[in-house]
Amino acid sequence: MYRTEKDSVGEIEVPQEKYYGVHSLRAKNNFTITNRQLDSDFIISLSQVKQALALANYELGLLPKEKFEAISQASQEIIDGKWHEEFIVDPVQGGAGTSSNMNVNVNEVITNRAIEIMSGTKGDFSVVHPNDDVNKGQSTNDVYPTAGKLTMLKKIPLLRAVLVELKEAFLAKSEEFDYVLKLGRTQLSDAVPMTLGQEFHAYYSVVKRGIERLDHVQREMQAINIGGIVIGTGITAHESLSKTALVYLNGITKEQLVIADDLVDGTQHIEQYVVLSDTLKSIAISLSKIANDIRLLSSGPNSGIGEISIPARQNGSSIMPGKINPVIPEVLSQCAYIVMGNNSTIGLAAEAGQLELNAFEPVVFYKLIESFDVLTNGIKTFTENCVLGITANEERCQDNLERSMYLATVLSETIGYTKAADLAKESLSTGKSIRELAQMQGIDVDESIKKSV
Amino acid sequence: MYRTEKDSVGEIEVPQEKYYGVHSLRAKNNFTITNRQLDSDFIISLSQVKQALALANYELGLLPKEKFEAISQASQEIIDGKWHEEFIVDPVQGGAGTSSNMNVNVNEVITNRAIEIMSGTKGDFSVVHPNDDVNKGQSTNDVYPTAGKLTMLKKIPLLRAVLVELKEAFLAKSEEFDYVLKLGRTQLSDAVPMTLGQEFHAYYSVVKRGIERLDHVQREMQAINIGGIVIGTGITAHESLSKTALVYLNGITKEQLVIADDLVDGTQHIEQYVVLSDTLKSIAISLSKIANDIRLLSSGPNSGIGEISIPARQNGSSIMPGKINPVIPEVLSQCAYIVMGNNSTIGLAAEAGQLELNAFEPVVFYKLIESFDVLTNGIKTFTENCVLGITANEERCQDNLERSMYLATVLSETIGYTKAADLAKESLSTGKSIRELAQMQGIDVDESIKKSV
Amino acid sequence: MYRTEKDSVGEIEVPQEKYYGVHSLRAKNNFTITNRQLDSDFIISLSQVKQALALANYELGLLPKEKFEAISQASQEIIDGKWHEEFIVDPVQGGAGTSSNMNVNVNEVITNRAIEIMSGTKGDFSVVHPNDDVNKGQSTNDVYPTAGKLTMLKKIPLLRAVLVELKEAFLAKSEEFDYVLKLGRTQLSDAVPMTLGQEFHAYYSVVKRGIERLDHVQREMQAINIGGIVIGTGITAHESLSKTALVYLNGITKEQLVIADDLVDGTQHIEQYVVLSDTLKSIAISLSKIANDIRLLSSGPNSGIGEISIPARQNGSSIMPGKINPVIPEVLSQCAYIVMGNNSTIGLAAEAGQLELNAFEPVVFYKLIESFDVLTNGIKTFTENCVLGITANEERCQDNLERSMYLATVLSETIGYTKAADLAKESLSTGKSIRELAQMQGIDVDESIKKSV
Amino acid sequence: MYRTEKDSVGEIEVPQEKYYGVHSLRAKNNFTITNRQLDSDFIISLSQVKQALALANYELGLLPKEKFEAISQASQEIIDGKWHEEFIVDPVQGGAGTSSNMNVNVNEVITNRAIEIMSGTKGDFSVVHPNDDVNKGQSTNDVYPTAGKLTMLKKIPLLRAVLVELKEAFLAKSEEFDYVLKLGRTQLSDAVPMTLGQEFHAYYSVVKRGIERLDHVQREMQAINIGGIVIGTGITAHESLSKTALVYLNGITKEQLVIADDLVDGTQHIEQYVVLSDTLKSIAISLSKIANDIRLLSSGPNSGIGEISIPARQNGSSIMPGKINPVIPEVLSQCAYIVMGNNSTIGLAAEAGQLELNAFEPVVFYKLIESFDVLTNGIKTFTENCVLGITANEERCQDNLERSMYLATVLSETIGYTKAADLAKESLSTGKSIRELAQMQGIDVDESIKKSV
Repeated sequence: MYRTEKDSVGEIEVPQEKYYGVHSLRAKNNFTITNRQLDSDFIISLSQVKQALALANYELGLLPKEKFEAISQASQEIIDGKWHEEFIVDPVQGGAGTSSNMNVNVNEVITNRAIEIMSGTKGDFSVVHPNDDVNKGQSTNDVYPTAGKLTMLKKIPLLRAVLVELKEAFLAKSEEFDYVLKLGRTQLSDAVPMTLGQEFHAYYSVVKRGIERLDHVQREMQAINIGGIVIGTGITAHESLSKTALVYLNGITKEQLVIADDLVDGTQHIEQYVVLSDTLKSIAISLSKIANDIRLLSSGPNSGIGEISIPARQNGSSIMPGKINPVIPEVLSQCAYIVMGNNSTIGLAAEAGQLELNAFEPVVFYKLIESFDVLTNGIKTFTENCVLGITANEERCQDNLERSMYLATVLSETIGYTKAADLAKESLSTGKSIRELAQMQGIDVDESIKKSV
Repeated sequence: MYRTEKDSVGEIEVPQEKYYGVHSLRAKNNFTITNRQLDSDFIISLSQVKQALALANYELGLLPKEKFEAISQASQEIIDGKWHEEFIVDPVQGGAGTSSNMNVNVNEVITNRAIEIMSGTKGDFSVVHPNDDVNKGQSTNDVYPTAGKLTMLKKIPLLRAVLVELKEAFLAKSEEFDYVLKLGRTQLSDAVPMTLGQEFHAYYSVVKRGIERLDHVQREMQAINIGGIVIGTGITAHESLSKTALVYLNGITKEQLVIADDLVDGTQHIEQYVVLSDTLKSIAISLSKIANDIRLLSSGPNSGIGEISIPARQNGSSIMPGKINPVIPEVLSQCAYIVMGNNSTIGLAAEAGQLELNAFEPVVFYKLIESFDVLTNGIKTFTENCVLGITANEERCQDNLERSMYLATVLSETIGYTKAADLAKESLSTGKSIRELAQMQGIDVDESIKKSV
Repeated sequence: MYRTEKDSVGEIEVPQEKYYGVHSLRAKNNFTITNRQLDSDFIISLSQVKQALALANYELGLLPKEKFEAISQASQEIIDGKWHEEFIVDPVQGGAGTSSNMNVNVNEVITNRAIEIMSGTKGDFSVVHPNDDVNKGQSTNDVYPTAGKLTMLKKIPLLRAVLVELKEAFLAKSEEFDYVLKLGRTQLSDAVPMTLGQEFHAYYSVVKRGIERLDHVQREMQAINIGGIVIGTGITAHESLSKTALVYLNGITKEQLVIADDLVDGTQHIEQYVVLSDTLKSIAISLSKIANDIRLLSSGPNSGIGEISIPARQNGSSIMPGKINPVIPEVLSQCAYIVMGNNSTIGLAAEAGQLELNAFEPVVFYKLIESFDVLTNGIKTFTENCVLGITANEERCQDNLERSMYLATVLSETIGYTKAADLAKESLSTGKSIRELAQMQGIDVDESIKKSV
Repeated sequence: MYRTEKDSVGEIEVPQEKYYGVHSLRAKNNFTITNRQLDSDFIISLSQVKQALALANYELGLLPKEKFEAISQASQEIIDGKWHEEFIVDPVQGGAGTSSNMNVNVNEVITNRAIEIMSGTKGDFSVVHPNDDVNKGQSTNDVYPTAGKLTMLKKIPLLRAVLVELKEAFLAKSEEFDYVLKLGRTQLSDAVPMTLGQEFHAYYSVVKRGIERLDHVQREMQAINIGGIVIGTGITAHESLSKTALVYLNGITKEQLVIADDLVDGTQHIEQYVVLSDTLKSIAISLSKIANDIRLLSSGPNSGIGEISIPARQNGSSIMPGKINPVIPEVLSQCAYIVMGNNSTIGLAAEAGQLELNAFEPVVFYKLIESFDVLTNGIKTFTENCVLGITANEERCQDNLERSMYLATVLSETIGYTKAADLAKESLSTGKSIRELAQMQGIDVDESIKKSV
């Protein structure tokens, strides 16, 4: 069973049971790009905006009670997880989000569901009209970015939570390994002593800094342009719309949104997403460095550094029995590379905006959401399947420390740089350890080490 | 109903009807990153490699006929599109592809299906063994990259086909618009005359060049490292394995593969994918520039350049009746931004390889496949839904040409640079057109224009 | 006249009049990469650190008064701009900055100059010793990054100053153009009315936001690791060194530096520079978008949008008399592309750090300094040679507004979406303007426009 | 002494002894961006183009003999290295190169020098005119890109030469180390045996591939657009100009240039530079991976892998006597990061081109030249100061090999996967080596190893 719908391009047959309509189908046909669906948090955010606007329009006397109730209920159903399969338009699309989101997909689904709630027939827009009612006082250009920001505000706490778990795991390890003396390395060369606890505390510190930056960047997502309509001038909108909608939207979402100071700017400039993506990127860069460190410290284990062991998560090789590979740190680095590449894409799209609107917001949102997802997932498995299970190989730590030439430096403060250099040279030429040579000269080596860390 | 399987980590329950096993489940648990499935072409390519190896092992007397036939049939079923849902491991994973591909997912699915074909019970590896039989003479480190290259060789012709269509569309338009005189612009400023046909011929030329580069880069994917086993030394492999497997693999895939000259190099260096990704990127860059040109030329239409019209594909705005937006060129640029960002990711992963293996191939393949898909899809909709329907607004072309100051340049050859500059200044100060002023001096303007294009 | 110096590699002849020595020459030979000199602010910052450390060492009784005074004076001379030509080592170098900065170039220049001040002979390290005196209680690994952060703290105010000028220029223009009605454009298509003042106010707003982010990011540069020595454990350093040196360094530089909470972290992680570079990048992205807008708005001028004029800064073309090109906005975009590319380089270098030290700080500093310089320079010329001289072409603004179909939207609120759409269609088919058709139906068009902005 | 020159902006005083003029000074003032000078090869290339055009114009009867001779001589002087200091305009500039190159700097310098040769007074353009004579039949838009391509054709052989030296150095090392058995590592974990010669042969192979790609990409630089004038239509140019100029330019430069098939395309699309930059990038990526491998293999030396030693090039640390750091490989990686970042910049600039001209060529050339220079320099020092002096630590190679669990794999072919796994487990639990356990079971271990490599 089909119903016939039409737009400015022509007529099209829509399956009767579907809530989407002609515009959604048109857009789906134009944009078969990623073959993925719009992110669920995004669908929910769009519906939250729609619901808030319906509330505001009702309060301002622009929408009759019955229509308002039906639209609000339809929106609530989507917020509660229903009808998401009706969002058929590819998330990457032209039109600055118009096609799949504002006047097409969300409006059509809510409209037809609202018509149904009011006992009408889908497609009979005399009951509820997608433009005159559901989209009342709105434009893609304010609804879509507002929903985009709401989506990121839903993603940030998920990322934050796994970062906090990782931070705490590093802190716990730094305490667990506090007493393990080991060799520090600069430029991959043997350097001076430290504790394994200090190593993990450094990881703790950088993750902590990442969380602080994430907390700070959150505000970039809180200034929305709802009520700006097409280009920020609020054309066609009731003068109290922004303010009224904001109150409802904060109520619905429990966020602390504000209306942007300058709505024209708020509609055309999207560098806030760049800044948010940058924050994810700087976190990803730090984590990939740490993941590589974990690979280095656990390398070997016999013929590498081998100072820590990471948990075996799966057979490492079909052909090398007993091989354990650092698969979890490896996947975290790959997540970081995705985030770094997406950061380039997002910067490109932001820079390419023209005049009153950036038409490339869809790809910004798509890639920012991917960055959030892979980074959050990557950190989660890294903490749970790697960090928490790391153990220290104390004997190896001790061996590596003794084998290095670090003692020259440790002793240089006591006996001076030149004498220490002589000891190092003597050690190299005679094969005797610096410790041995130093002790022959009556120097208390262990005391010197302890003081140095 | 479940069966119990175990690996070095411990035991796990596997649903009896599933072909995957303990290793796949383990990997799925470790790597919940993208929530996407491995690309179908990749699954098929893995199975083609498995089938070729089974053939080679059989020919070399390393695999009994019955096992070989079961393995080959199981592989063929996957090649024919069956059992793809059994590939449950996330495409982005640690372990250089080991986890989801070689010793885990493909081996398990083929093994259990082969056991079934031989009337055994899934999980009873005495019938067919995933390592000793299905993975015979193989390692992730040669199977996974070989399948990766086969996958790209399947993607290249798909991209090529849409590029050829686009090239032909541009050529047709260049002929259609051959006679339309218009203004050329440098630095967005009015410059000198050209034809609209020349504009589209330039687009044709750059696409043509892209196709030639794509044809050339194909060879980067043809040198495979099958038989190199773990690090390219061929450890545990029969000395004729590479050669024998190659013949079968070329037969199965109809490709023109060769064995890499240096298998140690062929296992650890993956810059070929960078080079392939670069080719996609340079094509994407050219197309995004063209897409922007189409937006500029069709801008307005009333209060922009407006020299061409692009087909209306959908209602442009919920709020601005009659507005037609360049949604299709916009989505093509977004595809380009994805390809450019992925190119960064791929470069990062290639650079990060360490010693005998690059552990980050999974993200390279994942992003390269995404680049192929979005670029191919973006070009397809661009050609079909935009380029083929472009029409010239001849009157506007003529108006813009007449309004510009181009005549000064057209005339400068005839009357000299200084005199032409004087005409331009006089035109600016008096408001009279250069044409008018020139004709007052008896200069044949139209003849000059015709000569200039 | 030459003096002979030697290091662990061998002997080398140094021109007698030079203050640099064997290590500098060795490094110069190893690193001929960019053929540029170290940035002057960096040389000054290194010397400020050296001076502060001499003061601290003297206060702690670790350096005799006479040596301290000579070292301090030598440092002050460099701070005052002397001897910069003695810094001969390429800024891009291996060794995490060791080669050209810490134990080599700065130490050698200060040492030999201090020796000279103390009436010794250059190269006679019994007077002042580069390691035991000038480098007392220091390592490249804490001196070089500390000087790096000081350098960025010198660059930030320079960038901030030109941003403030640009912000004020945009604000002034937004007031100057407050009354100029013009067409707004979304997706390069004619949309709805706005004022030219609103356009420039949007630019003002985004620059303002950039300045706020720059102010915030400054703190990333304030936590230094001085006293951490090799890997942050403070090996060989006096226990009060960090604290004492900090006080002096704040006194010398007038900065508000603090010692990093975790010096091990503070030595090995350098993501703060990524974060700083990201801030420059997000500013650059916004400015390049604005520069492109300026090009679009001034395009033509006859056969483009032409709504504003930018000042003619130079002859535009050797061949097209009278052509004015937007050369200043073009160079600003190019500066932005440099900043964006450098941001990639900086991210790569930060991610590649290994264990206790990031050996790639030199390229991070080199490219960050380039980003600061080209962005600051680009903004300066953009403000002075473009923005301040922009004028509005009011007549063209009015023409473009009237020619567009915007009236349909302006009227849609009054007469409803469907009727407005009918007017738009009628206008397209009859060629009559929407204004004309609307007025025929007795609608007050001008009143509607005024309300819409 | 000054002379007064004027342009459309106004009058300016030029020092009498200078060959540049008003346009150069104007541009210098507009573009103080990098504070660097145009690359010398670029200055020479511009002059070669000028000389070829003078020859062509003379042959076509468009330039009198005396003027031609003076222009040709002036050009030749610049080609021979004279007057380069007269090129005062910043290489990064707006105007697609117009400002500093075509109608400004090169034209002015050649004009005034030619006037001088003809015994005239600088600035007296009645003797030789910068536009009517020196720029005869030319535009920035064909001269500047043609000179850009010539510049790259001068840079390619320099890069090629150092690549060939590196390739040969790797080959020599692969032969030198042919007999050194060592452990291969995958994912930084101990894997299976190989020779150190195989390791270096793999490096040889990837460099060889890079050279082949560089040879191929050269053709991208050979198609020039000389004669296309403003937008490729050849406006104002003699119909035989392209052809005639080409012959002379090939003669002067000894290159194998051709005229682009489609001059409109050849003027507006610059993706060839992207493709060239991509080739540099893929080479840089491979080399940075190898540089990191060298760091890993030489790490320690006592408490890392330490299987090779790299030459000590300078004292490693002011504080750790005897420390040798891998400073040369570190700088090569930094060169690679610069090349990778520049590649982003170049891609951005290419994508941003609009309609008939890409106004961002200056930054493309500037960054491409930087990429060539730093990569060439980095490779040179890497080969000379690192690779050629690498020595094998055979004892350590042997130790690492014996300590690893590789024997399990080596033996698995002989005794089967399961038994080998049992040996590995037994080794781990008992602490006895696999070799020992295997020999206890009468297995010939050394024979197995030899066969495996």
